[in-house]
Amino acid sequence: MSHRLPHPQTPLRHAGAKTMRLKRLGIDTYQEMVAYIRSDCHVCRAEGFESQSRIEVRRGDKTIIATLNVLHFPLVGDEEIGLSEAAWRALGGVDGDLVALSHAAPVKSLSAVRAKIYGRPLSTDAAQSVIADVAKGWYSDIELASLITACSGSRMDVAETVALTQAMVDAGQRLHWDSGIVVDKHCVGGLPGNRTTLIVVPIVAAAGLVIPKTSSRAITSPAGTADTMETLAPVNLGTQQIRSVIEREHGCIAWGGAVNLSPADDVLIRVERPLGLDSDGLMVASILSKKIAAGSTHVVIDMPIGRTAKVRSVEAAETLTARLAAVSSTVGMKLSVRQSDGTQPVGIGIGPALEARDVLAVLQGRPDAPRDLRERALSIAGDILEIGGKAHSGAGFKAAEAILADGTAWRKFQAICDAQGGMREPPVARHRRDIVARHEGTVVAIDNRRLATVAKLAGAPTAAAAGLSFLKPLGSEVRVGDTLYTIHAETPGELEYAGAFADAQEDIVMLERK
Amino acid sequence: MSHRLPHPQTPLRHAGAKTMRLKRLGIDTYQEMVAYIRSDCHVCRAEGFESQSRIEVRRGDKTIIATLNVLHFPLVGDEEIGLSEAAWRALGGVDGDLVALSHAAPVKSLSAVRAKIYGRPLSTDAAQSVIADVAKGWYSDIELASLITACSGSRMDVAETVALTQAMVDAGQRLHWDSGIVVDKHCVGGLPGNRTTLIVVPIVAAAGLVIPKTSSRAITSPAGTADTMETLAPVNLGTQQIRSVIEREHGCIAWGGAVNLSPADDVLIRVERPLGLDSDGLMVASILSKKIAAGSTHVVIDMPIGRTAKVRSVEAAETLTARLAAVSSTVGMKLSVRQSDGTQPVGIGIGPALEARDVLAVLQGRPDAPRDLRERALSIAGDILEIGGKAHSGAGFKAAEAILADGTAWRKFQAICDAQGGMREPPVARHRRDIVARHEGTVVAIDNRRLATVAKLAGAPTAAAAGLSFLKPLGSEVRVGDTLYTIHAETPGELEYAGAFADAQEDIVMLERK
Repeated sequence: MSHRLPHPQTPLRHAGAKTMRLKRLGIDTYQEMVAYIRSDCHVCRAEGFESQSRIEVRRGDKTIIATLNVLHFPLVGDEEIGLSEAAWRALGGVDGDLVALSHAAPVKSLSAVRAKIYGRPLSTDAAQSVIADVAKGWYSDIELASLITACSGSRMDVAETVALTQAMVDAGQRLHWDSGIVVDKHCVGGLPGNRTTLIVVPIVAAAGLVIPKTSSRAITSPAGTADTMETLAPVNLGTQQIRSVIEREHGCIAWGGAVNLSPADDVLIRVERPLGLDSDGLMVASILSKKIAAGSTHVVIDMPIGRTAKVRSVEAAETLTARLAAVSSTVGMKLSVRQSDGTQPVGIGIGPALEARDVLAVLQGRPDAPRDLRERALSIAGDILEIGGKAHSGAGFKAAEAILADGTAWRKFQAICDAQGGMREPPVARHRRDIVARHEGTVVAIDNRRLATVAKLAGAPTAAAAGLSFLKPLGSEVRVGDTLYTIHAETPGELEYAGAFADAQEDIVMLERK
Repeated sequence: MSHRLPHPQTPLRHAGAKTMRLKRLGIDTYQEMVAYIRSDCHVCRAEGFESQSRIEVRRGDKTIIATLNVLHFPLVGDEEIGLSEAAWRALGGVDGDLVALSHAAPVKSLSAVRAKIYGRPLSTDAAQSVIADVAKGWYSDIELASLITACSGSRMDVAETVALTQAMVDAGQRLHWDSGIVVDKHCVGGLPGNRTTLIVVPIVAAAGLVIPKTSSRAITSPAGTADTMETLAPVNLGTQQIRSVIEREHGCIAWGGAVNLSPADDVLIRVERPLGLDSDGLMVASILSKKIAAGSTHVVIDMPIGRTAKVRSVEAAETLTARLAAVSSTVGMKLSVRQSDGTQPVGIGIGPALEARDVLAVLQGRPDAPRDLRERALSIAGDILEIGGKAHSGAGFKAAEAILADGTAWRKFQAICDAQGGMREPPVARHRRDIVARHEGTVVAIDNRRLATVAKLAGAPTAAAAGLSFLKPLGSEVRVGDTLYTIHAETPGELEYAGAFADAQEDIVMLERK
């Protein structure tokens, strides 16, 4: 059955007065669903719609709730409704489709949010209904901001965090595995180049542990693990494909977005990020819900600490670790947290293909392979081998190193890539520019955040070959004219933008004169 | 000096790479400032702008901070930036003006909001910086939602409420008067037809008290006091005009929006409303800041209580009253709160002109004048006469009644209208339709909110003559075919929409069979 209007001239206002034609406007509101209607249109007036009204838009059996923006200029026709990109994706359809509109019924779970604001703890039932509605996209951005604020500070106890975690798991798909032990790893973000996953997974899988790793694409960084892996093999795997890769190789590195694990977490992150609110309760629920949904039973968390990393102090790390431990033990997951150095980028490359080359160097045991990336990956893999019962306590690192050193991990990685659809060569950027030291000294500090910005301006992660190679880690002695880092770009324009930004930010790499 | 581009073909990307041409898009985002740029434009890529980035837009010496929506379709040209209506109004300018863009610097006061979220009380300094930035429009909607949530529940003590109130006053204009006593009134909204102000002001002014009343236009209701007054006289008065009306007549009824009193309050209300959060702390700061800014020293608050009014229970009223009393005594304002019946509309008319006719009937002492409106107005006026020292305790009502009964108040009202620019006749709607009872019974409940919706669908407040006349108050005996209320509209279409809605909502006026 087609939803297209059979007779384009039929005056819709007499056919129930609530039907309109769909129009894609191409407005990216960053995931908030927004609908656009003319202020003078009949439906708008008949229904009493106004800007910021929450309206329900129905197309066949699909329904979304969107925030209304009223238009004073004819961006859409009298009987047309425009949708933001997020709403367009959620509703489906093509231009001209008929959709039905009405005021959105009040979202009942919002009363649970209000109760939390007024001081009542979030019960299991409340968490379930709130998170289910969040996952369905029924909360506006201001409602999400209110929810996140109500759960921030010290306002979430362990019981509430458990309830939230479980609700996030229940709101999405959950993977199940035949194996009794399913291992996983997670890094509490913020460190450019920290692509240990691509080394850890083949080591651990080669040791016989099941590790169905799902990773994210970049949200604000120059590369996510899924972006880096994609330069080496396909990552858009569905549940069945993941299952068959795991059956064959015990390990995979897939994009998590394709399998809908803990979708409410993705919705919350989009508002947490611009608010700059880091709540331990929300962060713990976010991390653990993804792991539980992936079917993991034993998890190692890498927690880099540094001034420009996500966790900025040892105290913050201790608090977060305690909460992670309390919640994971309640939900029956075995957890090991490893605090690590978060003061500088890991490896040389920043950007999908450049990071992939670092990974390949480590796996292939090349002499120029970045030692820090190798050490980090082996530490994490060692921890996993220990909690997974493949190495005695304290012997994990050595066991992991043996698997890496004799080429077993490299062969396993190639086999995983083959199983995911075929290994490929990461692309190489066509344009480069060196950023050189203008005075001499010792490298005493590195601003990870601005370094990431340079890589993004150069085109990463959209241009997979773009980014930068960082050559002077902390403690390096630098002479005038030495290259601090090299920018890689696919177009001269991007090289120029990134270079101009880098030139104006001399203190990204802080040098101290002797 | 013109901000227009001198040579339209000049490639802007080489002239600093951050200059764009302005374009009005006519998108009403309900006051949030939003800017629209193409995803593929050079500035967007060079600056690393993405959807939800907070950007600074400068035109000459005017600057706004807007949330960015990236466009995937060419709603704007490569070197154009579109603005939402709120941003357009704030920045000024015409299509084609040159504007400069950059990432918005972090808004420093947001760290005070985060501190409040993490449990630290809002200090006087923190309140000042937060509210000053809110008034400047520097907070996005999600940041406002976070602030409001952090101040809701029982999270604001008296000291914080005082700090917030004072900060709201300081962020706007403040009026000063020569008189030692300046009286005012406020109604804690939610009751259709409750236009006592237009009766109270002339009574009080005739008694010799100074009452420079500023009122609001409708936000979600079918009429604000300023809308109703505007059907009788001009209300868009600047500070100087208000001053000259007060000098001549002691009283005025002006639109508050023209004099910029407590502008941060208006910003907060736009997000509080869709969030459905009523915080005593915020409500008290909102009410009192407007009064202090208006230069008032003695204030009477009318607080209607009812299931569909803003204050829903006696307990809620007591809590709010206690907080109002605590804060007003700290800031040195004399306050008297009167709790009143909020179970049904006041008077007969709902809508600007229809409410104005009720007011005129009371002022002119006509026998058909609504008794409830008259009683309410006299009670409030009486309270003001008492706290203003023009009547002994308990004698205010009688004193007010005397001024009304002998025509003094009516003559004073005409004089005030003349001073504001000339009295005029409220318009009469061209189309009417009666909504009749379909069965008999006694009126036992009235849904004020849906009744207001009917009036709005009929065109109020934009069409000043539109709205409804409500004829059957609580306790009325109704027979089949009796008119419950009459809809007034300026166009047949609006009459039809409002009528269709009314027909489908039979229980707006709840009848109980005997």
